[in-house]
Amino acid sequence: MQPTLSTGADGLELRWPDGTVGDFPYIWLRDTDPSGFHPQTGERIFDLTKVPLDLVPHEIKVMQDALLVTWTAGATPSRFDLDWIKAHRPGQARHDPAELVPVAWKADLGKDGVPRHDADRVLDSDAALAAWLRDTKRYGLSIVTGLANSTEAGIALARRVGHLRETNFGLTFEVVSRPDPNNLAYTSDALPLHTDLTNQELPPGYQFLHCLANEAEGGGSTFCDGVAVAEDLRAGDPDAFALLTTLSVPFRFQDRHTDIRSRKTIITLDGRGAVCEICFNAHLADIVDLAPATLKPFYRAYQRFMAMTRDPAYGIALKLTGGEMVVFDNRRVLHGREAFDPSTGFRHLHGCYVDRGEWDSRLRVLDRSLD
Amino acid sequence: MQPTLSTGADGLELRWPDGTVGDFPYIWLRDTDPSGFHPQTGERIFDLTKVPLDLVPHEIKVMQDALLVTWTAGATPSRFDLDWIKAHRPGQARHDPAELVPVAWKADLGKDGVPRHDADRVLDSDAALAAWLRDTKRYGLSIVTGLANSTEAGIALARRVGHLRETNFGLTFEVVSRPDPNNLAYTSDALPLHTDLTNQELPPGYQFLHCLANEAEGGGSTFCDGVAVAEDLRAGDPDAFALLTTLSVPFRFQDRHTDIRSRKTIITLDGRGAVCEICFNAHLADIVDLAPATLKPFYRAYQRFMAMTRDPAYGIALKLTGGEMVVFDNRRVLHGREAFDPSTGFRHLHGCYVDRGEWDSRLRVLDRSLD
Repeated sequence: MQPTLSTGADGLELRWPDGTVGDFPYIWLRDTDPSGFHPQTGERIFDLTKVPLDLVPHEIKVMQDALLVTWTAGATPSRFDLDWIKAHRPGQARHDPAELVPVAWKADLGKDGVPRHDADRVLDSDAALAAWLRDTKRYGLSIVTGLANSTEAGIALARRVGHLRETNFGLTFEVVSRPDPNNLAYTSDALPLHTDLTNQELPPGYQFLHCLANEAEGGGSTFCDGVAVAEDLRAGDPDAFALLTTLSVPFRFQDRHTDIRSRKTIITLDGRGAVCEICFNAHLADIVDLAPATLKPFYRAYQRFMAMTRDPAYGIALKLTGGEMVVFDNRRVLHGREAFDPSTGFRHLHGCYVDRGEWDSRLRVLDRSLD
Repeated sequence: MQPTLSTGADGLELRWPDGTVGDFPYIWLRDTDPSGFHPQTGERIFDLTKVPLDLVPHEIKVMQDALLVTWTAGATPSRFDLDWIKAHRPGQARHDPAELVPVAWKADLGKDGVPRHDADRVLDSDAALAAWLRDTKRYGLSIVTGLANSTEAGIALARRVGHLRETNFGLTFEVVSRPDPNNLAYTSDALPLHTDLTNQELPPGYQFLHCLANEAEGGGSTFCDGVAVAEDLRAGDPDAFALLTTLSVPFRFQDRHTDIRSRKTIITLDGRGAVCEICFNAHLADIVDLAPATLKPFYRAYQRFMAMTRDPAYGIALKLTGGEMVVFDNRRVLHGREAFDPSTGFRHLHGCYVDRGEWDSRLRVLDRSLD
């Protein structure tokens, strides 16, 4: 499986017997030399400013398992493992164990289709933790069952992933009906489907809502998959989709202590054009400040998206019971609740967030030992 | 100062005596009706899905100080204060007390040009706090003096702004030379100018480095203004600037517990084309994975930017002493340090981060009471 080497004026080519071709500019090889990384921290210590852009090696050799590049006569050559350099050839997407294909879902998933995982197993087993992380990331939603009846139990699960994301509502938050609410979550009103904290530069990633009590009449939870809604909008109304991916609108939350603002598109696409984020929260949408000519097309697209989130074709409803915790990607899956009557019983959810970065980091670290 | 009203098929126009013209689509007026916001939380409770996009008011009146729009015969009209609706007319940029014009600086700022603020005054006075926040945001850099000799003293200043941003290095971190470093900051090596944690989806905003001891030989701090460097690059090498604002490259940090990755452009522009962020950290730059044809122009632009950050025309150097804390916008101002000799004395900095969102929120809240 040794590749054939061809050298050019500013780079070399390796052609493997399986047809893979790697094109390696010399400057990239110099910058990527494994000896240019700190032996303990793995960080790059090579200083790119110390070499000319048009450097050319003194000697290049392909050995049985390595490419050797000698930059100046007599110097120790840079040694690249051939398998490694094939996997890291320029233009080749890097393997990432945290990259999982989303399973877009609609109402037919049903509440029984939501992945369920047992709290004790997730706490005790790395394999169970990885399985739960993967399911939750693929569906954007899962339910953890069998939690102890204490606010600490949900937090312990969240910390199994990574550190909590603090917000202006605290490191954790209690979702109960309050006499002096600074947020609609703290009333007994119905909450239509939304994502949280769209007014933050980085809205929180995964949300954990541990149900400690849900005895009031009403108070069911509702969810819909923003990716499914957005993809149907793209197919059915490409103009509306285009506007919602390009027009950024202002969001704002303010109370006595804070005034946090950010602009967001309702739908965000990643570098490959896939829907990677939904920011949808009519409560936190500030007075829309788009130019008059843009306002009407925007409202048409926005109202259409909003109506789709309410369409029974997309939503699922479930009523959490004590000891259950729903976990969802707040930047993908919209959540809401039915109104409840606080005079008929206590409803108490305890929540926190862990950002996507910590989630993916945990998936990658677990992948090192489990696979 | 009453405006003249003209009504059209899908909106109305107000024309003020000073020449200001506001163009207000009816759907925007309906969505913006002040009575559609929750009296306590200020959040929008009006449900946009309940009205047709092409709604037309039953009656429109301009009173002395208000615009009254009656949607259906007999209903209570929506009442818009005329000054308010002028300030909030579509297309008009919203006033934001946190929006400050950056002062781009170069070496001639000198270490004596860095804004200095007294810790006790900032802790005790809201006006002094606001002045420090504004200076630090305008310059991207300030020094707070007169801190007590305890790690808590720096944290107290940071918490005066908002909650701390936790990272994989903890809620706070100690910059000292360590026997088993997972990061170059924890060695005695020189650190060329960089921004921190470019491998995070949202790199931390403001960084606080409280100097508790700096008795070792060497160990001076260096800074340069990424906005100044980027703007000079835009003027002098627009092709390089264009590449660094559009090509996103991978960053990564990994140790035994984490593997955090993100793609970033080196320079980020805001919606108006102004430089709003620099992500520059050669240590955390992962193996560059751009396509071969893009690699060479990228390296040319990247090496040029890197060389500019080292150019004495941009940098300032200063040696912090015990009781001083340097505070800087980590997403704008690059920081570095000279190597030091740990055998000649102890060097100990204690650090933490507070994100831009908290910084701006504090500026807005202070503005309510101070102006």
